[in-house]
Amino acid sequence: MIRKVAVIMGSDSDWAVMKGACIQLKALDIPFEAHILSAHRTPAAAAEFAKNARTNGFGVILCAAGMAAHLAGAFAANTTLPVIGIPMKGGAMDGLDALLATVQMPSGIPVATVALNGAKNAAWLAAQILALSDETLAEKLYAERVAMVQQIAAKEENLQNEIAQL
Amino acid sequence: MIRKVAVIMGSDSDWAVMKGACIQLKALDIPFEAHILSAHRTPAAAAEFAKNARTNGFGVILCAAGMAAHLAGAFAANTTLPVIGIPMKGGAMDGLDALLATVQMPSGIPVATVALNGAKNAAWLAAQILALSDETLAEKLYAERVAMVQQIAAKEENLQNEIAQL
Amino acid sequence: MIRKVAVIMGSDSDWAVMKGACIQLKALDIPFEAHILSAHRTPAAAAEFAKNARTNGFGVILCAAGMAAHLAGAFAANTTLPVIGIPMKGGAMDGLDALLATVQMPSGIPVATVALNGAKNAAWLAAQILALSDETLAEKLYAERVAMVQQIAAKEENLQNEIAQL
Amino acid sequence: MIRKVAVIMGSDSDWAVMKGACIQLKALDIPFEAHILSAHRTPAAAAEFAKNARTNGFGVILCAAGMAAHLAGAFAANTTLPVIGIPMKGGAMDGLDALLATVQMPSGIPVATVALNGAKNAAWLAAQILALSDETLAEKLYAERVAMVQQIAAKEENLQNEIAQL
Amino acid sequence: MIRKVAVIMGSDSDWAVMKGACIQLKALDIPFEAHILSAHRTPAAAAEFAKNARTNGFGVILCAAGMAAHLAGAFAANTTLPVIGIPMKGGAMDGLDALLATVQMPSGIPVATVALNGAKNAAWLAAQILALSDETLAEKLYAERVAMVQQIAAKEENLQNEIAQL
Amino acid sequence: MIRKVAVIMGSDSDWAVMKGACIQLKALDIPFEAHILSAHRTPAAAAEFAKNARTNGFGVILCAAGMAAHLAGAFAANTTLPVIGIPMKGGAMDGLDALLATVQMPSGIPVATVALNGAKNAAWLAAQILALSDETLAEKLYAERVAMVQQIAAKEENLQNEIAQL
Amino acid sequence: MIRKVAVIMGSDSDWAVMKGACIQLKALDIPFEAHILSAHRTPAAAAEFAKNARTNGFGVILCAAGMAAHLAGAFAANTTLPVIGIPMKGGAMDGLDALLATVQMPSGIPVATVALNGAKNAAWLAAQILALSDETLAEKLYAERVAMVQQIAAKEENLQNEIAQL
Amino acid sequence: MIRKVAVIMGSDSDWAVMKGACIQLKALDIPFEAHILSAHRTPAAAAEFAKNARTNGFGVILCAAGMAAHLAGAFAANTTLPVIGIPMKGGAMDGLDALLATVQMPSGIPVATVALNGAKNAAWLAAQILALSDETLAEKLYAERVAMVQQIAAKEENLQNEIAQL
Repeated sequence: MIRKVAVIMGSDSDWAVMKGACIQLKALDIPFEAHILSAHRTPAAAAEFAKNARTNGFGVILCAAGMAAHLAGAFAANTTLPVIGIPMKGGAMDGLDALLATVQMPSGIPVATVALNGAKNAAWLAAQILALSDETLAEKLYAERVAMVQQIAAKEENLQNEIAQL
Repeated sequence: MIRKVAVIMGSDSDWAVMKGACIQLKALDIPFEAHILSAHRTPAAAAEFAKNARTNGFGVILCAAGMAAHLAGAFAANTTLPVIGIPMKGGAMDGLDALLATVQMPSGIPVATVALNGAKNAAWLAAQILALSDETLAEKLYAERVAMVQQIAAKEENLQNEIAQL
Repeated sequence: MIRKVAVIMGSDSDWAVMKGACIQLKALDIPFEAHILSAHRTPAAAAEFAKNARTNGFGVILCAAGMAAHLAGAFAANTTLPVIGIPMKGGAMDGLDALLATVQMPSGIPVATVALNGAKNAAWLAAQILALSDETLAEKLYAERVAMVQQIAAKEENLQNEIAQL
Repeated sequence: MIRKVAVIMGSDSDWAVMKGACIQLKALDIPFEAHILSAHRTPAAAAEFAKNARTNGFGVILCAAGMAAHLAGAFAANTTLPVIGIPMKGGAMDGLDALLATVQMPSGIPVATVALNGAKNAAWLAAQILALSDETLAEKLYAERVAMVQQIAAKEENLQNEIAQL
Repeated sequence: MIRKVAVIMGSDSDWAVMKGACIQLKALDIPFEAHILSAHRTPAAAAEFAKNARTNGFGVILCAAGMAAHLAGAFAANTTLPVIGIPMKGGAMDGLDALLATVQMPSGIPVATVALNGAKNAAWLAAQILALSDETLAEKLYAERVAMVQQIAAKEENLQNEIAQL
Repeated sequence: MIRKVAVIMGSDSDWAVMKGACIQLKALDIPFEAHILSAHRTPAAAAEFAKNARTNGFGVILCAAGMAAHLAGAFAANTTLPVIGIPMKGGAMDGLDALLATVQMPSGIPVATVALNGAKNAAWLAAQILALSDETLAEKLYAERVAMVQQIAAKEENLQNEIAQL
Repeated sequence: MIRKVAVIMGSDSDWAVMKGACIQLKALDIPFEAHILSAHRTPAAAAEFAKNARTNGFGVILCAAGMAAHLAGAFAANTTLPVIGIPMKGGAMDGLDALLATVQMPSGIPVATVALNGAKNAAWLAAQILALSDETLAEKLYAERVAMVQQIAAKEENLQNEIAQL
Repeated sequence: MIRKVAVIMGSDSDWAVMKGACIQLKALDIPFEAHILSAHRTPAAAAEFAKNARTNGFGVILCAAGMAAHLAGAFAANTTLPVIGIPMKGGAMDGLDALLATVQMPSGIPVATVALNGAKNAAWLAAQILALSDETLAEKLYAERVAMVQQIAAKEENLQNEIAQL
């Protein structure tokens, strides 16, 4: 059976963005749980969750945080499950603080970092990881790529209409 | 049987850094291949490799590139295997060009980005991904974490000696 | 006969900006086609377009993309026609991600990069390139420069009125 | 009796810089302990140390870390003692990663951040904090300021000699 | 008796942010004064205030300034009390100018810098410093940390409701 | 007959880098002239050269400059020939000053910007532009691309030897 | 008699900001002229103006420009009058492009750069320069400084009212 | 008689760079004094110097400082003489900290900022300011510009020799 994805937010203000990850996981029929756990405000609970994640049936952990974004690192320090970090925009220099605080991890404790506010892509990456041992999911992901091509074809059609009117 | 890791470099000048990934994979008994494939100089070969990677027994792809680092993105565009991007230092602003060009991927095509020159961490992340379906590997990774604690204990001892001499 | 300009966008959201390039090309009577082709979502179609561009009568290719802006690089990798990259604002650090991902190309595969959101200037640059073998176009470009001077003269007049009222 | 200062390093490679803090504390007769504790490699030990710091007689905690510098934040999350963060140079963009990861803390969990590699200033700040309840230390700090003025007077003399020879 | 906190602003436009520090100090029953004093427009008054701060019963000084944010440095130059700098957003590069101008102080004259617009955290840090010699305040700060955990628990509940409706 | 390329440097210190452009042009049998002309120290001569460039048989102008790199812009202001800007490393922030000063041109006056120190790529871009009306040159450029693939094949062989010895 | 100040804008869109400089100059009874002259669109007129500025009675030249802000540099290249550069916000990275393009001038051709959008300060600096040989103006500037202290006193009073209501 | 230039350094480590300003001033026969005065270590002496500078016969003040470079601002706050700021390289992000801390001054207190390490240009700017009321100096400055053109002509000759040997 497919493992669960944990969607962890450092603050409820991240929900507006991280909702996108949950919707994407749901659309792919990947079981998930979402929780608010802060590296700074609830460090013990965060560490506990990370330590038990594997035994509790999780396969991948998504961590969204802004500013001095320590959440993904704090999780990575307490588990050997793959941890995906989603730096949030809104701190200093358009989110560069969160990006660097998430990605620049020391040797031995990696965080798989995606784009600023890249909630949907984090879900996608989790799916690609889980699909390594789930052929059905792998096929769904492949199908989505084919669908992308068709979506662009539709947009191309609109574009040609726009150009005709220039 | 465990899937192979592909270690792809955009240029042979990346080898000095990426060697670290290969050594780490070897130490963990993870099968790997390393190749030079460039998103810009050999785009067709790179696309071909990516498209066939799953069928050819690969599970995770590591892509190292500098400057306008498109390699990981070019691979991610052609496979649904997880692609780990390692931005190389040495271009503009201490490697910020490579970091942003690797991590800021559009929705649907994620690249799991690690730190600048983070070759070893990329190997580690690949191992964590593969360990989801390989209990032996999972145990090795856990053992390495325990070993880390001991290494720091040794360094702490040295530090106390240094302090005694201040 | 004058070669065509290809105006390629990575996403239909770039149209609002790239429309400016099309209008400029039209005003200069330069034939063009505009298409949506993504380095990440339709990599094969993008490569195909680039490979055949010369034979299909194109002379210059404009590529607009944001964030990890690989589009211009992906085109440049597949053609020896001049490729002009237009980095789009809106990703990290006010578009610095797109600018660096577009301009920092490796040796042998140049991208002629213009300013952030510089759609109009990309059209202008394409015109300057094509004008090398088209005397009529060269004269139009020169005439536009003369017109610029007159436009500024008109603005100067307005300014003097404003100052008189301080 | 004066409280101790804890000088915590995320890695033994930080010792070359943090030695300066220890020498400064020693010169001011402030008791201190120095330890290697990593937010990522020994998260449990770090949290434990922080939680017990007050009861163990510490008054201020100095935390030095580089790259995704989470050490000071991890300590601040586990104690209400003042935590001083020293971002280390050497990661991305000349240490900007460590600076932002140290200073951009969320509301309720402050880290008192000093300059990049500012080990000596961190010791100084710790002394200023402890001097609030230690008159002798306060006088020493004031005396050091007077000494600074004299050191500059000596340098000024040298400068005038240099200028005379231009 | 507990020492006062000085809340100094370089301009009345900083009040919207710094109000947060005053409210926080009030909530913790910490006596404070707030004043407008500019390193550039009223340098003499600022220096005078700093020099007399200790004798006037102050224990910690908060300085908020934007752009070339010299206020905290100007205070630190004239007192050995701990000075907390709060860089204001709104100048160049999202406040990076104010952050660097506040934190990058020379050896011997530290400024304890908090996050951009981190007024509340500055108040918190002042409280942590004063709590070193005030057991009641120390207990309040500990109680606030416990309260934080409960606030997050409430938010977690809301989150689960949101997820149930996806 | 093929038009000449002008290789203009703002300072003789740029020669070490720009030599690469000249060697590349020579290898492709493209006629060129190289000159030192400064936007700031010899503005009149620079403007004169630019104004007469077309009549003097030039087809493309390469301008290399560092810091507040105005050279390419000053040329672009005085000609409608395509101007390629090569920002030099060595000023502020690893050459970011030169990059932005070269690429961020206003509407109507484009500069085709290449990577920092991208002398060779500037020559390459010039060649691609001139090849639009020179079939022999177009074939040479295509041949060079094929040669690149072979060079990488040779490097790949070396890599496999290195890996065999890990 | 006092020399005139020239207020030069690269574009009429800079007027909204540069109006502030003109109002300030008027308030100080300093004669000025304001003109639109572009380093890129009207290079010859700009050079001509700069060359004749001294003979035409100007003493200081203010140049406002955004993006690849070459205007001040182009003026400085053509006169030995002091040139003050005002970088405009609105290009890349919050105006960092304009700031670096204005300030990073080569040896021998300085531009006196003020803050981003610092129109008023540019007027002020021009006044300080002209006041070196105009005692009346020097006294006005000194009086303005005294007035500043009084303005802050008024703001301080408002602040105390605000605080009383917390 | 010509007014003196004050060359102020925040630290004797700035002398290596600022020597260039003194040599330039000497070459132009401009009287100067150089002193070490720190905004942070000798704030009272710095303020005193600035306040008396006009009466003491100074016309322009050069201030060199690095990191949180407050020196020029501290001088500008205490005089209405023109103050030229020279940001020193060597802090964070290649000196960006010093540049922003020098240039981003608030309204009413301008600092005329030159390039990073731009000592020579600061001297040049001071000369241009003083030349407004000193015709002999104005002629010297004009002569130096003519000399620059000749120096470049010599370098151009060398370049042609180099090219002949390619």
